[in-house]
Amino acid sequence: MILPAVDAPPRAPVLLGVDLGGTKLQLALGDAEGRPLRARRRPTEPSGDPAADVARIAEDARALLAEAGVAACDVSAIGVSVPGPFDPDTGMVLRPPNLPGWDAVPLRAWLEDRFGCPVHLENDANAAALAEWRFGAGRGAQHFVYLTMSTGVGGGLVLGGRLYRGVRAGAGELGHVPIEWQGDVCSCGLRGCAEAYLGGASLARRLREVTPPESRVARLAGGREAATAVHLVEAAKQGDPFALAEMARYAHYLARLLSVTVFALAPEVIALGTIPTAAGEALVFEPVRRQLGAHLWPRVASGLRIVPAELGDALASHAALAAAREAFRARDERHAS
Amino acid sequence: MILPAVDAPPRAPVLLGVDLGGTKLQLALGDAEGRPLRARRRPTEPSGDPAADVARIAEDARALLAEAGVAACDVSAIGVSVPGPFDPDTGMVLRPPNLPGWDAVPLRAWLEDRFGCPVHLENDANAAALAEWRFGAGRGAQHFVYLTMSTGVGGGLVLGGRLYRGVRAGAGELGHVPIEWQGDVCSCGLRGCAEAYLGGASLARRLREVTPPESRVARLAGGREAATAVHLVEAAKQGDPFALAEMARYAHYLARLLSVTVFALAPEVIALGTIPTAAGEALVFEPVRRQLGAHLWPRVASGLRIVPAELGDALASHAALAAAREAFRARDERHAS
Repeated sequence: MILPAVDAPPRAPVLLGVDLGGTKLQLALGDAEGRPLRARRRPTEPSGDPAADVARIAEDARALLAEAGVAACDVSAIGVSVPGPFDPDTGMVLRPPNLPGWDAVPLRAWLEDRFGCPVHLENDANAAALAEWRFGAGRGAQHFVYLTMSTGVGGGLVLGGRLYRGVRAGAGELGHVPIEWQGDVCSCGLRGCAEAYLGGASLARRLREVTPPESRVARLAGGREAATAVHLVEAAKQGDPFALAEMARYAHYLARLLSVTVFALAPEVIALGTIPTAAGEALVFEPVRRQLGAHLWPRVASGLRIVPAELGDALASHAALAAAREAFRARDERHAS
Repeated sequence: MILPAVDAPPRAPVLLGVDLGGTKLQLALGDAEGRPLRARRRPTEPSGDPAADVARIAEDARALLAEAGVAACDVSAIGVSVPGPFDPDTGMVLRPPNLPGWDAVPLRAWLEDRFGCPVHLENDANAAALAEWRFGAGRGAQHFVYLTMSTGVGGGLVLGGRLYRGVRAGAGELGHVPIEWQGDVCSCGLRGCAEAYLGGASLARRLREVTPPESRVARLAGGREAATAVHLVEAAKQGDPFALAEMARYAHYLARLLSVTVFALAPEVIALGTIPTAAGEALVFEPVRRQLGAHLWPRVASGLRIVPAELGDALASHAALAAAREAFRARDERHAS
């Protein structure tokens, strides 16, 4: 009797994610749904030569695949979460402030050449929004806004159950919505942007100037010159009056930004990452909800949830894998247009 | 020889649109694409009894159908462009300020009972956005924002080629984005809303207070107590210095609102209706584009078109018929959820 030929069982598709962070580079392998299976992290350490940087990323990715027993040809898509401006049409990374020497780097083409699978670049806030929407604070929401609030402030919009990018992937730049006309100068060069009041870099700059030398913020930081949002949040939790006043100011400006966001987008859920999540309910969420109640219509405010981000340390892997899942859709859209 | 039976040719679907305007009620018959075929308009004249008002609307609609030789049973969908708050789930009109006695009126159910076809209520700014997107200033744009700027200020968002409504159809309320924190009181009760600076009602209130008695605005209006945006625009076109200064103020606040809109949504095209369209290029569009250039990033500003609305007097019919076209999609979505 001749046994029928048995096909090898189809291998499950594997996704590869790269989070090109400001200081850390995270690589993650994930299943087809974008759940991380295995990850590695190292300092980003740009060499000044982007081709060498990308070769090293590819090497690390192959090492991660080897650890997992996955052949490079079984990677079905690669996603890259990119911190700075890039051209979604050409897949060129333009000039991220944290990657010296990276100026018009054809990252998508280079990775597609090396791995032979579709590669998708996604703005880091968009990638994080997709991750929190699928696995974190935005689960089940049709209309979801994620605000990344660490060094800078960025937004990702999931509207009607899909990521909304706008022209040249420029939507959701909520960190640069003006919330104080002709106000403080922002790192982007404009004035009065939300990021100039709510970004970690702006906060640190302000703390260097206004922190009283005897305050707990200065003591925790070992001198106000070294004070950051981390010290501010910690001092406020310990009841330091200066820190509490600064956190009230933070919550006030955050409420301004959210008022704009809600009238424009009417999301079900807004999730806030990093600084608000570290500061927590009493210092940020409760005062923001209270102030926002006075700057929204009741029928709008009552349907809205403002919550901490949930993924924490797992965000980088999830975000990069969420970008990988978009590779297929992005390729279809490019071909269709 | 027996001839094969010939079926009656299928009748082309007809749409019926109702624009429930503040002062005028517009009825329109349209083809399946939402192109108006025939329309009639009358003063809205609410009687205080919503059931009687709706019966009269239905009567007028039947008269319009009769004129066009269309049977009521050939109407495949009805759309209503609604000026005030309504519940999109239940189809109840809640309490439009311009329709006394209309308080929780089951307009969708009443019209469905009378005509036996799906009925869809749409916020008037959304309906206008769909109309300008399909037939006017937004043709061909993937991402389009329409701002209705007459008595009040409202927005409609077509994102990724479809209307984005948000939770409880609350998205696009760009008239209530705060553009001056704790600024002028708005008709909605909040402070500093865009509408408090850009709405026709707010402008008229301001003109009553600040118009110099000898200015051309006052002369055109026959006294500053009667001054409106119409007189302001006319006087500015005639070179009146007070009117020019007021229009510069208007353009300034409009630039603030558009800066927010662009950073949040990155549309390809923003179309501005009524007051800006009447005022034109020199008084509004040119100064707005110039000011906005200083409050946007160049790579964002360069991809953006800010243009006058195009449909003019045809907007009411187009908007109501655009709402009718949404009836099928809205019904499918309700059944799916």
